[in-house]
Amino acid sequence: MSNPVLVEVTRGDVVESRHRGAIAIFDANGAPVLRIGDTGRRVFPRSAIKALQALPLVESGAADALDYDAAELALACSSHNGEERHVNAARVMLIKAGLEEDALECGPQWPSRVEDVADLVRAGETPCALHNNCSGKHAGFLGLAKVLGAPTRGYVLPDHPVQQEIKAVLETLTGDTLTPDICGIDGCAIPTFATPLDGFARAFAAFGTGENLEPLRAEAARRLYDACVDNAYMVAGTDRFCTRAMAGFRRRVFVKTGAEGVFCAAIPELGLGIALKCDDGASRASEVMMASILEAFLDLNDAEKALLEDLTQPAIKTRLDVKAGVIRPTSDFLTDLRRAASVSI
Amino acid sequence: MSNPVLVEVTRGDVVESRHRGAIAIFDANGAPVLRIGDTGRRVFPRSAIKALQALPLVESGAADALDYDAAELALACSSHNGEERHVNAARVMLIKAGLEEDALECGPQWPSRVEDVADLVRAGETPCALHNNCSGKHAGFLGLAKVLGAPTRGYVLPDHPVQQEIKAVLETLTGDTLTPDICGIDGCAIPTFATPLDGFARAFAAFGTGENLEPLRAEAARRLYDACVDNAYMVAGTDRFCTRAMAGFRRRVFVKTGAEGVFCAAIPELGLGIALKCDDGASRASEVMMASILEAFLDLNDAEKALLEDLTQPAIKTRLDVKAGVIRPTSDFLTDLRRAASVSI
Repeated sequence: MSNPVLVEVTRGDVVESRHRGAIAIFDANGAPVLRIGDTGRRVFPRSAIKALQALPLVESGAADALDYDAAELALACSSHNGEERHVNAARVMLIKAGLEEDALECGPQWPSRVEDVADLVRAGETPCALHNNCSGKHAGFLGLAKVLGAPTRGYVLPDHPVQQEIKAVLETLTGDTLTPDICGIDGCAIPTFATPLDGFARAFAAFGTGENLEPLRAEAARRLYDACVDNAYMVAGTDRFCTRAMAGFRRRVFVKTGAEGVFCAAIPELGLGIALKCDDGASRASEVMMASILEAFLDLNDAEKALLEDLTQPAIKTRLDVKAGVIRPTSDFLTDLRRAASVSI
Repeated sequence: MSNPVLVEVTRGDVVESRHRGAIAIFDANGAPVLRIGDTGRRVFPRSAIKALQALPLVESGAADALDYDAAELALACSSHNGEERHVNAARVMLIKAGLEEDALECGPQWPSRVEDVADLVRAGETPCALHNNCSGKHAGFLGLAKVLGAPTRGYVLPDHPVQQEIKAVLETLTGDTLTPDICGIDGCAIPTFATPLDGFARAFAAFGTGENLEPLRAEAARRLYDACVDNAYMVAGTDRFCTRAMAGFRRRVFVKTGAEGVFCAAIPELGLGIALKCDDGASRASEVMMASILEAFLDLNDAEKALLEDLTQPAIKTRLDVKAGVIRPTSDFLTDLRRAASVSI
């Protein structure tokens, strides 16, 4: 079975490239609202579920014990650009846990933006694990390990208590059983389990509404949701889709990207959870898919409309900043979205 | 019609992402040897046909009039990393034409490699048009404009004599008629025409063998072929697929990548021309497609085998350089390739 083409990239009047994908949208009762493509196929969620992976940190009381503030909780859910504020916040999280950066087991990574690369070079530095886009998540893992009284070394390994806690949360929220045969190593060295999009959509409907969650978990989800939407810059950074969308929608939506074209979201006012993957792993397409979903399902004010106009049809430009084409949803995809939205709202 | 999945990306034991594509392989008589997917669909060739776009520079005598050496001809066919040797060679090409870098109309671009970005920053510089991966091609265009007696300003525009010369060459070699409705603006500001892969495969079979070309053009093709395969570093740069493949095959193959997942090649000893596009525009997949074709069709020595083992199955690694998965051809794709190769050789 082929997933449908959902996004196309044009140049002049010609479609130059095509992106296929699958999308699951579920309500807070755990019922599907829209399924496009094969949403039962196992997909590695990668960084799109960092907010779920942060639940044990808050539920356990570790976040409070370590005095992590909302911006730091947002960083624990982030895939950040490695900008100065991100790096500093990750460092502070480690200090609060009595640790230093050499405790991080995610590996080093250059910052995303050339401006930040240039700053590092001018300072005579090379990137360290704090610059890794996952450093906030890892700092949170280390904080949890500390409060659990578990060893901090080896916190990325599948049988470490931190990873076991996370696995248990994911099994409950997705309804899936996470076995070694569906386990891969994520780019930052932690285990990642391939689960159907249906499961992640269900999980994010619960994350955004608190429905069907035990009180402690519902409260942890609410705190992480608030932390992310109130500190959108910490979740991604300058010019990033997640930051622009969450800042622009002012608490109405939570969105989080993951590597290889995954995107998850929660829309509490509609009770919806969303999970999607672009087949080929392209973020440019997963972003347009997510923006198109937000546009179809949400009642928009003018500022939100203007933002989504940008995010649903980003321009392809030449090196001289001349528009050469556009990345856009296909008309069949838009038709499917509008039909589902009109039924569900 | 869906193009087939030709390349898959794994993580652990799970296929994480999938890339579809179309491939045309033609012989020097202009007959198809293998067609996979819709090879009649129009595709922007982007930088994959820079060697064809350089034919007028050589045919016209401009390259000799300006004393361009083989390394400079290779740079005229290149999508380079913006490393120091590339930038210097582009500057020399301009000087030989009596021009300076402000004549370039391709726009600035940071070098591809972070090492070269760091060198620029340490020197207190920002990138200029010489660092643009297309600067060699543009320097060649400017050289041709000079020798033709055409204005150098506006050499990127569709009705400029340089672009008209190139269009005429492409129409002859591909058998296509290049009309404004199939014209887009390339990332470096020049016109790019969408033509079926069949046409490009035919063109590269002629480019690599000289067959069915008038003597002057056959001689120009031979010089450009030799320039590229003898100066593989100038065509791309450190760690790049084109450079590794051409250096490793020592004159046996010409390969050239283009943006949005296009790849073209010529294998003179077999009389073959190859053109392919990954539907979604991913280079990681177009590279594996090309490497798999070379592996299927060529008789390989041990060094070539070792090189292709790397290029057909590049590893997906964590930030700590641990192998997490692989990019590889699908088994159906390999079967198709081997069947076609066994018939044609």
